[in-house]
Amino acid sequence: MTGSSTGRILVLTTAGESHGPAEVAILDGVPPGLSLSEADFEHDLSRRRPGQSAIVTQRKEADRVQILSGVFEGVTTGTALALLVENTDAKSKDYDALKDKFRPGHADWSYFAKYGVRDHRGGGRASARETVMRVAAGVVAKKILAGFGASVLAYTQRVGDVSTAIDPLAVTEDHVEATPVRCPDPAVVAEMIAVIEAARADRDSIGGVAQIVATGVPAGWGEPVFDKLEADLAKALFSVPAVNGVELGAGFAAASRRGSAQDDRFAVEGDRVVTKTNHHGGILGGISTGMPILLRASVKPASSIPQPLDTVTTALEPTTVTTKGRHDPCLVPRFIPIAEAVVAWTLADHALRQRARMGASSSR
Amino acid sequence: MTGSSTGRILVLTTAGESHGPAEVAILDGVPPGLSLSEADFEHDLSRRRPGQSAIVTQRKEADRVQILSGVFEGVTTGTALALLVENTDAKSKDYDALKDKFRPGHADWSYFAKYGVRDHRGGGRASARETVMRVAAGVVAKKILAGFGASVLAYTQRVGDVSTAIDPLAVTEDHVEATPVRCPDPAVVAEMIAVIEAARADRDSIGGVAQIVATGVPAGWGEPVFDKLEADLAKALFSVPAVNGVELGAGFAAASRRGSAQDDRFAVEGDRVVTKTNHHGGILGGISTGMPILLRASVKPASSIPQPLDTVTTALEPTTVTTKGRHDPCLVPRFIPIAEAVVAWTLADHALRQRARMGASSSR
Amino acid sequence: MTGSSTGRILVLTTAGESHGPAEVAILDGVPPGLSLSEADFEHDLSRRRPGQSAIVTQRKEADRVQILSGVFEGVTTGTALALLVENTDAKSKDYDALKDKFRPGHADWSYFAKYGVRDHRGGGRASARETVMRVAAGVVAKKILAGFGASVLAYTQRVGDVSTAIDPLAVTEDHVEATPVRCPDPAVVAEMIAVIEAARADRDSIGGVAQIVATGVPAGWGEPVFDKLEADLAKALFSVPAVNGVELGAGFAAASRRGSAQDDRFAVEGDRVVTKTNHHGGILGGISTGMPILLRASVKPASSIPQPLDTVTTALEPTTVTTKGRHDPCLVPRFIPIAEAVVAWTLADHALRQRARMGASSSR
Amino acid sequence: MTGSSTGRILVLTTAGESHGPAEVAILDGVPPGLSLSEADFEHDLSRRRPGQSAIVTQRKEADRVQILSGVFEGVTTGTALALLVENTDAKSKDYDALKDKFRPGHADWSYFAKYGVRDHRGGGRASARETVMRVAAGVVAKKILAGFGASVLAYTQRVGDVSTAIDPLAVTEDHVEATPVRCPDPAVVAEMIAVIEAARADRDSIGGVAQIVATGVPAGWGEPVFDKLEADLAKALFSVPAVNGVELGAGFAAASRRGSAQDDRFAVEGDRVVTKTNHHGGILGGISTGMPILLRASVKPASSIPQPLDTVTTALEPTTVTTKGRHDPCLVPRFIPIAEAVVAWTLADHALRQRARMGASSSR
Repeated sequence: MTGSSTGRILVLTTAGESHGPAEVAILDGVPPGLSLSEADFEHDLSRRRPGQSAIVTQRKEADRVQILSGVFEGVTTGTALALLVENTDAKSKDYDALKDKFRPGHADWSYFAKYGVRDHRGGGRASARETVMRVAAGVVAKKILAGFGASVLAYTQRVGDVSTAIDPLAVTEDHVEATPVRCPDPAVVAEMIAVIEAARADRDSIGGVAQIVATGVPAGWGEPVFDKLEADLAKALFSVPAVNGVELGAGFAAASRRGSAQDDRFAVEGDRVVTKTNHHGGILGGISTGMPILLRASVKPASSIPQPLDTVTTALEPTTVTTKGRHDPCLVPRFIPIAEAVVAWTLADHALRQRARMGASSSR
Repeated sequence: MTGSSTGRILVLTTAGESHGPAEVAILDGVPPGLSLSEADFEHDLSRRRPGQSAIVTQRKEADRVQILSGVFEGVTTGTALALLVENTDAKSKDYDALKDKFRPGHADWSYFAKYGVRDHRGGGRASARETVMRVAAGVVAKKILAGFGASVLAYTQRVGDVSTAIDPLAVTEDHVEATPVRCPDPAVVAEMIAVIEAARADRDSIGGVAQIVATGVPAGWGEPVFDKLEADLAKALFSVPAVNGVELGAGFAAASRRGSAQDDRFAVEGDRVVTKTNHHGGILGGISTGMPILLRASVKPASSIPQPLDTVTTALEPTTVTTKGRHDPCLVPRFIPIAEAVVAWTLADHALRQRARMGASSSR
Repeated sequence: MTGSSTGRILVLTTAGESHGPAEVAILDGVPPGLSLSEADFEHDLSRRRPGQSAIVTQRKEADRVQILSGVFEGVTTGTALALLVENTDAKSKDYDALKDKFRPGHADWSYFAKYGVRDHRGGGRASARETVMRVAAGVVAKKILAGFGASVLAYTQRVGDVSTAIDPLAVTEDHVEATPVRCPDPAVVAEMIAVIEAARADRDSIGGVAQIVATGVPAGWGEPVFDKLEADLAKALFSVPAVNGVELGAGFAAASRRGSAQDDRFAVEGDRVVTKTNHHGGILGGISTGMPILLRASVKPASSIPQPLDTVTTALEPTTVTTKGRHDPCLVPRFIPIAEAVVAWTLADHALRQRARMGASSSR
Repeated sequence: MTGSSTGRILVLTTAGESHGPAEVAILDGVPPGLSLSEADFEHDLSRRRPGQSAIVTQRKEADRVQILSGVFEGVTTGTALALLVENTDAKSKDYDALKDKFRPGHADWSYFAKYGVRDHRGGGRASARETVMRVAAGVVAKKILAGFGASVLAYTQRVGDVSTAIDPLAVTEDHVEATPVRCPDPAVVAEMIAVIEAARADRDSIGGVAQIVATGVPAGWGEPVFDKLEADLAKALFSVPAVNGVELGAGFAAASRRGSAQDDRFAVEGDRVVTKTNHHGGILGGISTGMPILLRASVKPASSIPQPLDTVTTALEPTTVTTKGRHDPCLVPRFIPIAEAVVAWTLADHALRQRARMGASSSR
């Protein structure tokens, strides 16, 4: 149990279903003295919000964050921070036809098998609607990280078979936000959009890959042997709906390599130890090296497609089901702010864990 | 902090350094009444042990597990189980030359940055020597899983660019153990060994990929939204040294797919709900579906290679370093029992979490 | 950090300040299939509510619980349950005079020292207002316990020096609720009320003791060695504002006794093992014995009294402060439902922990 | 489950039974750079050790701590610290007569009810033998606390009805260790010893109370609302065998008091905020105030007495049982170093939790 919390000393706990009255989050362990207002959440929540362009779902949510506690006179108090976002555009009726059917690729069956209870309205707790609170928490995490000089950025690296080889360190958020597909490489954007549009035209969806980059992370974050930094980051990314693969640095490509090619040589730059290359992705032995952290996450094609698919009913009779709700033909663009958020939260937790150990001299 | 424990209610805590007197583990939450003896550990520990063949490190460890508590008259008592394995063949002198140098690809620098203390003897806590206790814990986890009808098996799926497409469900442990490379596909074994031997001949190492299969896992394990089953499994695998990528089911290949190809259709087989294909890898929405769980982990080429590599000293002076200890030219074969162990532990923890929720009716 | 959560697998997380917009709770690990509606919370919340009689504070709160998630069609779904209670009668202006002063006996100074931030409005997070969510969570915990045949009851055992020696096992909730002082012993009620009225007449407050009884708890709950059942229960009670002492069974009186008087002899009653006396209070070695669990908690006199008291300002200047808000002259009567709630939550968590271990055969 | 670990970021995990080969502990989260050797454990372990005088059990244990990991070249490395103490004088035969009987006042019955397994040898995991690792961990915790300027001291405050009213702040460890009863007040020592000797002469035991004092704790430790400092301290004390009551500051005596008598007035002393009295015991609202922390723990008379007592067998037949092992007629003197240890561990954990929040400026 207790899958509703994440983090060791910076702990995020969430609740809320797609078609319930609201999404809620309690953020525990946020240091006092951070400036924080409800307006601070707007930027990232609007990036995640449905209905932003033709290539994402048309569900409309205002997604206004209400701060219920933990902030006084514009700064965090250090006590538990509670956030609430109302669900204002939930159309449960869209789901009535699904009441007794398990949608392929969805969590309908596994939730029913686990809990013995069926909440068919848009996936209930299984809906990606819950990620709204992750993004909200990410806003706070990014503020904590900024105090350590660190930041996180993500972008669409691949859609179907169209990918970019752009240098992740050359990308800015402005580049990412310049197009609805959230790919900062102008050379491939049109092609990516075409792939998404083609999938939609065929009443289908398409997968993709996100690249995540964390810069400014000092050497020394991560807790061997089980809470290695990459282990907690991978867990965070895999906990987002539709993610089915995560790589650090060279990732699976390193399986083809020899050690002499993979081993990044150390050097000194100014007064800092650096590596001349970054195949390791910024983490060695579970601890950050001070180099940029490079992660990639594979995102499955959306399971919800407006085609009739073979399945079974709760009474175990064969049937077909067609998903009618409003869904994304490609999940990656809206995954970008979510990926940033979960990575930021995990890094901020580790920043505080290391500060618990070392006090002021918590990083190099 | 607290990176030395893993699991929520079945909690493994370990300690021990490569060149200290012993490795220790405390297993908390093991149900009472399991038969367990010191001999039960021999099989999997011998699979992990160095020095088994020409293609792995020649360090020799007896790796005999001593049970210090938690077992009485041949069965577990339900109280904390303590295990100890002595380190008998640690040759610290091999590491004297490394005292002030950071080995490329190793955790030397990041540990030093984190703790401000240098234990240069074989990596200290960063050494893969700690995995001996993971394998020991895995033996207990496999016994718990057997009580639920579930089991875990892993094998070498790729070495360098040589891979097998064998059906994971057709593989048995006997097939895996038939060759030192732990690949159950006779068609590729010789080639894989040749790739490893070539790397060693060149004073180099080579990467690879392991396939892990869990069968008999009932539908219903996994705790949304943060402790999704795949999230905890990915964390477990990423916490093993040298792992830098994890995939569930189709993994990164799904990024190229459309939803209509990825969505596994549900069907009924006897009185069970199944999927006709298994692209999802046995987990949907963070919860097991009852289908086999299919994971792959990418394993970097070993960082320790007997070549001089550019690096810096603790005084930040440029230098070169040559690793002299006894190391594996390919880590995958010895990773196999470790992968099984960490996956088994994670699954057993989730089995008990679900049983806490549902009591006797804990699975379908 | 992370003081906002309690429980191991049944986890309660709360947030909210006395004068913020709302109190919030997320209950994780609640088993599916429990019937639950907003009306179910009314009974215990009205017992805790201010303004019920002349001897408690006159602050008025509707304290209506809104269920934001985790319940569908009248039963729990097994996913995170979110509850919200609005703060509708917060009179912050009452506190303006306290802005720069530390009230004696209050948490004003220690919070300021800890967080470096001052929320002077009614104690902020330190206010007992947060206990509204504990009582709400207790309602759910009591339902879980009922499924195990267990229940919890508390009553006022002492006010000042007036105490009852009534047999705890003869008390029912009706007896407790028959008087505003929540003492089930008619012989002392009038005297207790007189002591409280006298304190109020003197612009003062008075302390007391609550007795808590848990019946129907089977033998076998509690997790040695650190999470002994009495240890977790004591923590739960000490976490409630104003509690400064806890006893199990004979408690401090046992310090004067010999073992031959304290050791409860075992006997058989029907097919159950019982003890002929219950000096041990229902727990031995950290594990419930099947006998009623008997706890007492000491509750300090309320710190808020309408008298000028010497103190210092945030600028460290001497001053006096007079608390003007609406407060209880004796905290014990309103502590009763809170004590029941925190004990119920802790017991329910342990019930599930034991069920995780043993499955269906989880108790005797 | 998971009762074998305590602490949030400074986590102690223990294992070991009275008559098993060894007691083991893993200490996770110990900051690097603390000087630590095996000799450092001798002082406190000898204080806890049986057989020190005529008034404690005559079981003889060398209790030599072996450091298995986490220390290199005389200082802690920051990684998991493993400690081991062998059990060298376990006389299991003493317990053969108890094999099928539940000793009154002991955990025999409740363990059997919980686990369904009987380890009759001296209580197995329920034996106070496990506290040897708590004392060892306390040595490390005291070192961490010393870095914050804080220290912990305990002494025997009461034996039976003989008590001391000595000022806790005037007591030193030398005063405590001057007599085997560990009471620093020469005026009552002889009488306390006489009470213990009388109990032993009567083949009986006697209870008592320990006073614990923590000085130098800065204002600001403790995590509202559930992990209040007093809540975690009470849990720590209640987790020690035989403790059945805990008070903070005035404790139960405050139940008889009015607020005007209990409320400690604030004042300024130099540049520090202090209280003129210390009825609150150094903690307000769950957070340390900077005043000395004053706790008392009630310790039951030892359950093991060499008299025949009525009980039942595992087959539920009536019988009598006489405990023959070597036991203490009064547990309080040997409880003193254990109490110091568990309080020190809890405070050190909270010190690091606060440092995680605030960094260098972690206290006032």
